[in-house]
Amino acid sequence: MTAAVLEEYLKRFQTDLDQVVNFWLKYSHDKEYGGFFNCLGKDGKVYDELKYVWLQGRQVWMYSRLYRTMERYHRPEILEAAKTGGAFLQKFARVQTSSGLGKCAFCLTRDGRAVKVQRTIFSECFYVMAMDELSRITHDKEMQADAESMMGQLVHWVRIDSSGLGRPQLPGDQPVNSMAVPMMLLCLVDQLTEGRTEVAEKYKELSEWCVEQILQHIQRDGKAILENVTLDGKELPGCQGRVQNPGHALEAGWFLLQYGHAKGDAQLQKTAVDKFIEVPFHTGWDKQHGGLFYFLDVDGHCPTQLEWNMKLWWPHCEALIAYLMAYRLH
Amino acid sequence: MTAAVLEEYLKRFQTDLDQVVNFWLKYSHDKEYGGFFNCLGKDGKVYDELKYVWLQGRQVWMYSRLYRTMERYHRPEILEAAKTGGAFLQKFARVQTSSGLGKCAFCLTRDGRAVKVQRTIFSECFYVMAMDELSRITHDKEMQADAESMMGQLVHWVRIDSSGLGRPQLPGDQPVNSMAVPMMLLCLVDQLTEGRTEVAEKYKELSEWCVEQILQHIQRDGKAILENVTLDGKELPGCQGRVQNPGHALEAGWFLLQYGHAKGDAQLQKTAVDKFIEVPFHTGWDKQHGGLFYFLDVDGHCPTQLEWNMKLWWPHCEALIAYLMAYRLH
Repeated sequence: MTAAVLEEYLKRFQTDLDQVVNFWLKYSHDKEYGGFFNCLGKDGKVYDELKYVWLQGRQVWMYSRLYRTMERYHRPEILEAAKTGGAFLQKFARVQTSSGLGKCAFCLTRDGRAVKVQRTIFSECFYVMAMDELSRITHDKEMQADAESMMGQLVHWVRIDSSGLGRPQLPGDQPVNSMAVPMMLLCLVDQLTEGRTEVAEKYKELSEWCVEQILQHIQRDGKAILENVTLDGKELPGCQGRVQNPGHALEAGWFLLQYGHAKGDAQLQKTAVDKFIEVPFHTGWDKQHGGLFYFLDVDGHCPTQLEWNMKLWWPHCEALIAYLMAYRLH
Repeated sequence: MTAAVLEEYLKRFQTDLDQVVNFWLKYSHDKEYGGFFNCLGKDGKVYDELKYVWLQGRQVWMYSRLYRTMERYHRPEILEAAKTGGAFLQKFARVQTSSGLGKCAFCLTRDGRAVKVQRTIFSECFYVMAMDELSRITHDKEMQADAESMMGQLVHWVRIDSSGLGRPQLPGDQPVNSMAVPMMLLCLVDQLTEGRTEVAEKYKELSEWCVEQILQHIQRDGKAILENVTLDGKELPGCQGRVQNPGHALEAGWFLLQYGHAKGDAQLQKTAVDKFIEVPFHTGWDKQHGGLFYFLDVDGHCPTQLEWNMKLWWPHCEALIAYLMAYRLH
């Protein structure tokens, strides 16, 4: 690909980004209750008022990151929107239990009452991202501490005791190494440690653990990235063991490549590109119609997820980032 | 449609049924641990060993019903298969808790250990169907009592106290009338009461309640069947309130029509056909490519379920039953 073609894409993406940011600035802000509407039609109309915590977190993070890193978004209304969203999350995201504030809700009513709590860590991950990035533009040390405190809670659930997630302990439910978990934690470490030597030191062992956990997903003599493996890195039996999520593999590749680049670890960068960025393209791209499949079975059986052959927009955005990063860094 | 065409279809369905039953008899039985494998390739090979409780229940019910009602299936190996499956369910389906046997698991390992428990009533519904139908061919009064006892538990969760389902009580999670629930309970009442006057008397009030609950889903001046309504039968806001499940509506129509026919209630039969069997065809059939959509938004927004536009095989089987029943009874 020539530099001129990349320049063309860059221009197009800049225009698209402006349109997207303007759309959400214009239509998604709930001026009455705070926070953001997540379900907007193409015409900007709200077709559902539920507020999904991870989307609230992503939007706070996005406004804050744009404000901090791109001059044309360094505008008071972007700062204000990020702060309003952060305040809504801090006030409502965590569910009150008899023993204090517990998990984050998965979604809230318009006025902030919890509707559903998932038995996973992902709403909490987006809470951490939002609070950390927002604290960087407001210089709010308490908010940064809030992000790190939630991160500590997450690590406790993942590495020490998962009972706080609310899953009943069942004799047939063996713990597995699900790639989404170390992948998200590595992403959070990158978020929390940017430009902070002391914090990086605090999470050093965790990031090494995440990398080790992610690398266990290279299976079948390096020819496949499997989404779930045993705790000691072996292939699991059945559909759960054979499932591939090409979008997750690419995302993991991006995080590993970034981490390897920061550490100056050439071998890890090579593994990130060869295994997590190239393999999912060969195994997960639809050669007939184009696009990345959502799920695939490594032995070619039909995955049990009904939506397995859908082409979702966000893994394609993540793939763009992963491939451009591989092109630039490697 | 002429009688000759129907005869043609009948012959085809008979052949298909024989093929399907022979396939499952040949490949799905787990001779080592009991129960049935659920995940079979077209070649009969087991590609996943997990045993889903509602599929185990459906298979026990199917063998038992075929044995009881169709002469060509009144064979010792069908009876034996049903009994083996029933024994596996009775031994393993219910999860042991500190206060005794609780909910049914959603799925089990090959050797019967619980892997996952859903916070809904549907695994338990299939347990009831299996036990009742099996008890009719084995004349096992204890098993029939087991079915009715589980039914009592279900009704308690639905009408009195849902806390046993394990859902956390959340301030934004308002109870709704979800059509799947009264629809399944009405189906179970039909199962439990067939040919039994005393049992029918016991469940009379429940079946009237189910009918009343189902009829509340007729919305938009009779032009739509909505899957979720408020407890007093009003339309709910947002995506949850606007979602239509054409397959569920047809299934509800079939159960209502059957119930109305048994009661000699002509008005209810007319409502079942006009609203639950005709409306979903007009609103839920894909006029371009054919087939019933899985989910639709009554105002034409994109449903939030990723799999909304898929055409699944089982709602089409249920539609066949509903339309043939409407043709015959009405």
